[in-house]
Amino acid sequence: MKEYEVIIIGGGPAGLTTGLYASRARLSSLLIERGLAGGQIVNAEHVENFPGFPEGISGMELGELMHRQATKYGLETIIAEVTGIKLRRDQKVITTSEGDFTARAVIIASGAERQRLTIPGEEEFTGRGVSYCATCDAAFFTDKPIAVVGGGNAALTEALHVVKFASRVTIIHRRNQLRATGILQERAFAEPKIEMRWNTVVDEIEGTDAVRRLKLRDVITGKKSTLEVAGVFIAVGFKPNTEFVKGLLSLDDTGQIVTNERLETEIPGIFAAGDVRRDSARQAITAAGDGATAAFCAEKFIAR
Amino acid sequence: MKEYEVIIIGGGPAGLTTGLYASRARLSSLLIERGLAGGQIVNAEHVENFPGFPEGISGMELGELMHRQATKYGLETIIAEVTGIKLRRDQKVITTSEGDFTARAVIIASGAERQRLTIPGEEEFTGRGVSYCATCDAAFFTDKPIAVVGGGNAALTEALHVVKFASRVTIIHRRNQLRATGILQERAFAEPKIEMRWNTVVDEIEGTDAVRRLKLRDVITGKKSTLEVAGVFIAVGFKPNTEFVKGLLSLDDTGQIVTNERLETEIPGIFAAGDVRRDSARQAITAAGDGATAAFCAEKFIAR
Repeated sequence: MKEYEVIIIGGGPAGLTTGLYASRARLSSLLIERGLAGGQIVNAEHVENFPGFPEGISGMELGELMHRQATKYGLETIIAEVTGIKLRRDQKVITTSEGDFTARAVIIASGAERQRLTIPGEEEFTGRGVSYCATCDAAFFTDKPIAVVGGGNAALTEALHVVKFASRVTIIHRRNQLRATGILQERAFAEPKIEMRWNTVVDEIEGTDAVRRLKLRDVITGKKSTLEVAGVFIAVGFKPNTEFVKGLLSLDDTGQIVTNERLETEIPGIFAAGDVRRDSARQAITAAGDGATAAFCAEKFIAR
Repeated sequence: MKEYEVIIIGGGPAGLTTGLYASRARLSSLLIERGLAGGQIVNAEHVENFPGFPEGISGMELGELMHRQATKYGLETIIAEVTGIKLRRDQKVITTSEGDFTARAVIIASGAERQRLTIPGEEEFTGRGVSYCATCDAAFFTDKPIAVVGGGNAALTEALHVVKFASRVTIIHRRNQLRATGILQERAFAEPKIEMRWNTVVDEIEGTDAVRRLKLRDVITGKKSTLEVAGVFIAVGFKPNTEFVKGLLSLDDTGQIVTNERLETEIPGIFAAGDVRRDSARQAITAAGDGATAAFCAEKFIAR
């Protein structure tokens, strides 16, 4: 069983920055990623708010740059699914689909995934009109009407991307105002092809071989209606990837890991960084900042 | 008196990122900088640990990129010295060398400056051999012997930079081991032109028109000695720029502002971000992450 000083779970901006700092601190470090390097950020077509890139940068490219930098100073990486963390004296044993690894300190940077609506038709039509990633799928809906479900930054970002392709974009939001940041609201309201459907929820997604229509319901009047669409992008929130620490760490009611300002969890030597932790602003730059902080704190923990 | 929703004090990575996020959130925002945009980072010749730049980037260039990006979405900036913050009902009044400004929320991102040794000769020879910025001044000491005082990341970074120019670099550290991160220690120990002087302090800096020698003292044996140098770089810590909030906010014993994990100070609507706050890892990336978090929290505060 291979031993490290630091094991990092997750290969997004938080994990990659932890890896960069830990390896530069000459700690033997392993980063366990589940798939493509970069995490959620690779789904973003155009990132305008990561400082240092005034013209913006694609999420894919930013993820690649971070990965190249993080692995430049001796960080090891492996693709595996983490299934659990066990405590053994002053070591942490990480069980994965590729075997076990141990470390003195563990940084959980496993991120968060898009929340499902859990309505009829959603699972059935995923990949056939139902999508959680506009950047990946928008081009499939060129000149077709689509819907976006949600009212936060993610929903409006999706809508503003999809509108470049679609014939019409209907934003379906269960409240009567958006949570999204000002500039995104302005852009959405200024876009003639975007229309809002307030106080409305999707009850069902219908179709044949692919999505054809949504069954909607006004949450104030109870009135039902249908909306003909070729696709629907769902952006209603995030679900932290914390299944593998259930029973080990206490999670808040949305499944996020609770830390203090030094990113310490209740177990000494286990830290959480980025979107997986409570109070994260869920931005690439805040996740990256967390990564550096977590590496510093892990270095101090190991040196005790 | 001009009114804003958000006023940001400081133009380093923390302040610029706050400005980027606040202006994208369509909050009317003013950033007050004291001088060159970019803060401390502009003094770094080569930044290797800001994620997204695998080949590294000069601090000057990174500062300029961040400034360009931050001012792209409507952020106003002004060059002024902040002298105080006064509370007036639910407004904060910022008094500066260029007049008063008011805001609903204030983000203090005023950073930290290099600590002085406060020994004879230090002030007298500043700019004539005594320096706090290797990037700025190293080339003046080409083929000459120099000293670096300190044992942390900043001191070793300075030493590794200066050694490219100097004939010999003596690192003077009052303890018998370094606080600096592993990779920097390795590089310093591998550099034949760098030598360590452990358990040693500088009592006085001597010279005529410029620095000639240092009076040293071994803190264990008490033995005194002299070291002939043409220059000395002092890197013994940081002093937060918090003079203007003394009496308003409680500071820790080094003058840092205490915040919670939402970067709130004890006064509602006043936040602190970056090197100026306690528990900051004092990295450009952690400061930038703080900036985004502070902007989010300020946005929420204003929307209450």
